[in-house]
Amino acid sequence: MKIRTKQDVRDMARGAALLGVGGGGDPYVGQLMLQQEVLKGKYPTVIKAHELADDAKVLSVCGIGSPPVLVEHLLSSRLLSELMDRMEDYVGYKIDALISAEIGGLNSVMTLGVAAQRNVPLIDADGMGRAFPKLEMVTFSVYGCAASPVMIMDELGNMTLVNARNDATAENMCRAISSSLGAMVYASLYPMTGKQVKDFAVHDTISLCYDIGRCIRVSRDELDSPFDGLLALLNRPEEGRHCKILFDGKIVDLKHEIKDAWHIGTITMESHGDSTDVMVVEMQNEYLVARRNGKTVAIVPDLICILDSESAEPITGETLKYGQRVKVLGLSAAPIMRRPECLAVFGPGGFGYKEAFEPIESLNP
Amino acid sequence: MKIRTKQDVRDMARGAALLGVGGGGDPYVGQLMLQQEVLKGKYPTVIKAHELADDAKVLSVCGIGSPPVLVEHLLSSRLLSELMDRMEDYVGYKIDALISAEIGGLNSVMTLGVAAQRNVPLIDADGMGRAFPKLEMVTFSVYGCAASPVMIMDELGNMTLVNARNDATAENMCRAISSSLGAMVYASLYPMTGKQVKDFAVHDTISLCYDIGRCIRVSRDELDSPFDGLLALLNRPEEGRHCKILFDGKIVDLKHEIKDAWHIGTITMESHGDSTDVMVVEMQNEYLVARRNGKTVAIVPDLICILDSESAEPITGETLKYGQRVKVLGLSAAPIMRRPECLAVFGPGGFGYKEAFEPIESLNP
Repeated sequence: MKIRTKQDVRDMARGAALLGVGGGGDPYVGQLMLQQEVLKGKYPTVIKAHELADDAKVLSVCGIGSPPVLVEHLLSSRLLSELMDRMEDYVGYKIDALISAEIGGLNSVMTLGVAAQRNVPLIDADGMGRAFPKLEMVTFSVYGCAASPVMIMDELGNMTLVNARNDATAENMCRAISSSLGAMVYASLYPMTGKQVKDFAVHDTISLCYDIGRCIRVSRDELDSPFDGLLALLNRPEEGRHCKILFDGKIVDLKHEIKDAWHIGTITMESHGDSTDVMVVEMQNEYLVARRNGKTVAIVPDLICILDSESAEPITGETLKYGQRVKVLGLSAAPIMRRPECLAVFGPGGFGYKEAFEPIESLNP
Repeated sequence: MKIRTKQDVRDMARGAALLGVGGGGDPYVGQLMLQQEVLKGKYPTVIKAHELADDAKVLSVCGIGSPPVLVEHLLSSRLLSELMDRMEDYVGYKIDALISAEIGGLNSVMTLGVAAQRNVPLIDADGMGRAFPKLEMVTFSVYGCAASPVMIMDELGNMTLVNARNDATAENMCRAISSSLGAMVYASLYPMTGKQVKDFAVHDTISLCYDIGRCIRVSRDELDSPFDGLLALLNRPEEGRHCKILFDGKIVDLKHEIKDAWHIGTITMESHGDSTDVMVVEMQNEYLVARRNGKTVAIVPDLICILDSESAEPITGETLKYGQRVKVLGLSAAPIMRRPECLAVFGPGGFGYKEAFEPIESLNP
């Protein structure tokens, strides 16, 4: 994959919106930042994890806050550049590569922008293959890489360095700092080695993200429905990847609020022409569970995506509207994400749900 | 003044409780820490600000959190020692002296303990001559010394470094971090020079604090009422210091709660033998305003102290009880604290009161 044009950037952002499963921050903001670099001729380089030396130095960069706030509280290239400079100063080395902690939403597109800006490669991998609302919800943390030190900055130049004893505490501290600074800050965190990335990351997600975004665009022009192309790309049971259209209908109720810097909500949809056929999706920054007429049809960490019925444009949580015609897509999480040690952190129990995880392919045979 | 015995330490803590005007954290906790040093033969040295070189390096240390939590969430000498080590590492110099940001409550006694522990002198001064609930409510900040960098630690070893663009933002960030770590953390902050201390501190407050504590104890044995001794010490109109007994009665109602890591409350007292003569004191960590039968008789930054009627033992906000017999004492704030630029930060308006500041000597002629 090569990201050289505005169209490539838009394809990447579209894929990131789908994998953001409603959250992760609107990729549009990251898209503008990446586009600025690309138009200057600074193209990001994406490498595979196996190309890294085992002792390569790797860092992540991400936004921490409430996605709807991000759109008003914009990021700047200068802020990200200063953040990375300070973090390299603090850890005492120049990095060999960046990794996105979160492929979905803002963070992957933004990290591509930072990679282009600093002329360091981005690894084709991330820590979850989707978006999640908490710092510790990455495979890196599950397998023993610490989030700390976390360097945090906001656009006014307020700086915080967090060294927490564990990643759940780091999350609490960073969330509190984000709230105190208006619910959107940027962080550099998860210092890792090349070996750790090879062993613990979710691989090939940057290229998957780009392929999804490109597939939606191309299918609009070349196929009856862009969903045909999307299913052909994402539903490959022989490779262990499952994708289904879970619902086709209209948003008839939308409750959401910002609470403790979280975006919490419930989306209710009715099937076209049958008002008794109802889908309810619950979100905490991301879409977490989809229930059709009370029966669970997809649950975290599997991916639940809400897309425009016609264009297949993915819809983020903060842009949902009453009356929208939508399709709900279910996509299986990467195999590493379904391991028991991972489910213990970001399975249904990690979000307060009592039900056990069940894969979408067995919920929807 | 020399602090050499357990009795000296108790005198100091008693004075700090009075100057804490209900808040500042229970000095008992700091007393235990200082006593530990004194019993090891590590005596704190107290010097006057004019003994400092103009370019001397000075730091403060304090607790940040909710006073009632402090009593359950104890501090340790090891934590404070590690905190100061890390702060000296970060700023890149060894300090020449410590200054207490806040004479009232825990922070002054604790800072004496840290001074003894590290064998650096403590300056006979502080930033307010009382206790206040917010980081920026010190003369240091009013006159342009920045709170940042603020190094924060909790007893589990979680560390945060805050570099805020202004002190109100530093307060919001530190308060948020404190909340996220259980509402009690310790901080080193307000790096200053000897010149800044000479120009901007409230002077001679460590010795005043000790004198108050000692006076209460000695007066108990030697005078009819310890209040006679206390008034003789504190009411010296010829020196510009005014002290009055504002009320003598019984606590008949007590409302308080922990809200956003603040200790908020209202204390209602009735006069002995006249239930229509009522005093109401409002607190936000500290006692802020006293109203007798609806008329304001003392208001922040003047000091409002609640003491046991018989022993004159100062009562901190978290140890107030229904039915206690108390006297309410009003004490004028230091002249520097009553300047317009100071009142703009920690006068009545700084706590949401619409009324203007009026000195206790004119409210109670």
